[in-house]
Amino acid sequence: MEWEIIPGGVTAPRGFRAAGVYAGLKKANRGKKDLALIVSDTLAAAAAVYTTNKVQAAPLKVTREHLASGWARAIVVNSGNANACTGEQGLKDARRMAEITAEALGCRPQEVVVASTGVIGVPLPMDKIEAGIRQAAQELSKEGSRAAAEAILTTDLRVKEIALRFSIRGRPVVIGGIAKGSGMIHPNLATMLAFFTTDASLDPEQLQKALSLAVDNTFNLITVDGDTSTNDMVVALANGQSGVGPTSEEEYKLFTSVLEYACRYLARLIARDGEGATRLIEVEVRGAHTFMDARKIARAIASSNLVKSAVFGADANWGRILCAAGYAGAELDPERVDIFIESAAGREQLAARGQMVPFDEAKASAILAAEEIRIIVDLNLGMATAVAYGCDLTYDYVKINASYRT
Amino acid sequence: MEWEIIPGGVTAPRGFRAAGVYAGLKKANRGKKDLALIVSDTLAAAAAVYTTNKVQAAPLKVTREHLASGWARAIVVNSGNANACTGEQGLKDARRMAEITAEALGCRPQEVVVASTGVIGVPLPMDKIEAGIRQAAQELSKEGSRAAAEAILTTDLRVKEIALRFSIRGRPVVIGGIAKGSGMIHPNLATMLAFFTTDASLDPEQLQKALSLAVDNTFNLITVDGDTSTNDMVVALANGQSGVGPTSEEEYKLFTSVLEYACRYLARLIARDGEGATRLIEVEVRGAHTFMDARKIARAIASSNLVKSAVFGADANWGRILCAAGYAGAELDPERVDIFIESAAGREQLAARGQMVPFDEAKASAILAAEEIRIIVDLNLGMATAVAYGCDLTYDYVKINASYRT
Repeated sequence: MEWEIIPGGVTAPRGFRAAGVYAGLKKANRGKKDLALIVSDTLAAAAAVYTTNKVQAAPLKVTREHLASGWARAIVVNSGNANACTGEQGLKDARRMAEITAEALGCRPQEVVVASTGVIGVPLPMDKIEAGIRQAAQELSKEGSRAAAEAILTTDLRVKEIALRFSIRGRPVVIGGIAKGSGMIHPNLATMLAFFTTDASLDPEQLQKALSLAVDNTFNLITVDGDTSTNDMVVALANGQSGVGPTSEEEYKLFTSVLEYACRYLARLIARDGEGATRLIEVEVRGAHTFMDARKIARAIASSNLVKSAVFGADANWGRILCAAGYAGAELDPERVDIFIESAAGREQLAARGQMVPFDEAKASAILAAEEIRIIVDLNLGMATAVAYGCDLTYDYVKINASYRT
Repeated sequence: MEWEIIPGGVTAPRGFRAAGVYAGLKKANRGKKDLALIVSDTLAAAAAVYTTNKVQAAPLKVTREHLASGWARAIVVNSGNANACTGEQGLKDARRMAEITAEALGCRPQEVVVASTGVIGVPLPMDKIEAGIRQAAQELSKEGSRAAAEAILTTDLRVKEIALRFSIRGRPVVIGGIAKGSGMIHPNLATMLAFFTTDASLDPEQLQKALSLAVDNTFNLITVDGDTSTNDMVVALANGQSGVGPTSEEEYKLFTSVLEYACRYLARLIARDGEGATRLIEVEVRGAHTFMDARKIARAIASSNLVKSAVFGADANWGRILCAAGYAGAELDPERVDIFIESAAGREQLAARGQMVPFDEAKASAILAAEEIRIIVDLNLGMATAVAYGCDLTYDYVKINASYRT
């Protein structure tokens, strides 16, 4: 497939503008941006994937109502306050965020997606939100993606942004995205926000199908610490301004694979940016009997505190890898399992058929000391494969999470 | 019910002796004990509960074979090496451990329970094991429980030992126990060993039923870090030397409740002794629709890295508690949930009907700074209750687990 990475993030596709401003929600980080707007010039097909946590924040409920139509114009996001566990007032506030945005843009409130991230259980300071939205609406621009990407961050260290250009029937199409996430990240979208824009032309059902598939293969396989959150969502808007969209099955596959690439790119950045993390861990499970088995085992290994701590210590403790595979609840014959590690520093086999093989400890340690490492577990049972993304568990993870709220 | 705590651990019941010696398996801890023997003077009814990990260590397989008869004389345990993922050689070595023990004691190898804990994937040094078993057999005594309790530890900080005396039909009966665990501890018995002795007279089926129930309500509700291990087992021996055993349903209930008390006592010590832990966390879930729901939610909260980190920081972050309840996979209506914390420093309500209630931050922080804290979550849905046991997540957890193997 042919596509290229281009600058511009969510404002790279035609007909999208964005802004990010400081509304005063992040007290501890005075001066950092905390309110973002992403706007399509015209009504866009809209799709979304939400957290599976039974506790769902007010903005999710409101967004679900608004996207029932399948169409939207704008996304408003604040960081610093999750508007979760805030009861009736929270719902009222989330609806009011959409109304203020609609007023400022001249659209209907039902065309506005609302998202929030931050502390749970504290009412939104609506005066600050309102001033922030009005300011952001005035600052909307074709160069606004980066500011929006900054404004959705919480404990993230890095801005997460991507844009990809490809072509459908000879005409250029762009997909852009920004994301937020670090800590509380787990399979089912924990405190993870991602917003995609595209100028491709798709109907809402097509877009939803592509987004659901892409998210399932990428964001849902990130595990930073095993918790899932109340506020996570991934939203995509397709405004058709390129004048072209996928019509054949082949074109649709192309669109989906580019969207999936964008999702994977951002998902890897999130995993790499896990709270306190020093290393990205990719866990590839091969030779599983079923795809679900491969996913379960990959996730169990990537979210094991003991594996994550061992990687932090660059300790090739393959017994913990096998042990995590053993409690994943998937089909497994320990006496068939092969385990390898690889990184820019090389590759080494640690176990064959469930038993230790003699390996070079110094080399194994060097492999694990790289910034991005891959653990490969071959079950030797079948043909299914999955990759999960995680990070190491460090002193700084504990430090950050021991005092986040205060 | 009337019982009293007495000294003596596993050698407190009549007809049991024990020993713990240094066999040279713990290289990094030269001089610490690493091999234990617990022996009944006469053949005893035996029961066991094993890890549910699909990867099971050689000693578990051998013990399962030996306990098929329902009777045993001795338990041999080594620490420092788990004899897991060691293939055919591992099975051979575990069988040989039983043979050496049987020779030294003058019983049959099939009457010996074998257990190991420590590093995975490294063959047992059988010369050291053999010398250690012979030495331990010579040192067996009525005062040997403490030495045995020391010899089964790995990263534990404290010895875990209990003995309880009660009476059946006016005659004294004793249950003793020792345990090992810290790190890799989770519901289904991870790197957790516990051994119980009693001079009550029970048949193997009665003993198995009592042990399974007691373990399910105690050890299976400990969660230190979410991983389950390859080597865990709980074994009980009942040699009948008191001359009395439960015959009525009431007496059997008494026996089971004393055994459960002993299990809970040791389980709490294990949770409190989690790697790097500074606090014991008890999570009590009330008002669940079913007992399973209560257990799921209690375990999800007690094993949430975010809750554990917040407790370490004495931060009353109730949003994380509710959030963990939300992804537990149990029935829950967020808008009915009440959350409280309590400890020796007092009690405070943090949330009512899923929303923040104004609370005294300083007092909440003081409550969480105690050594043993209780998080109470009332779902207000039904009548079922469960308590799970965990600990806080600290810098030292990461430190210990980043370099355990090397």
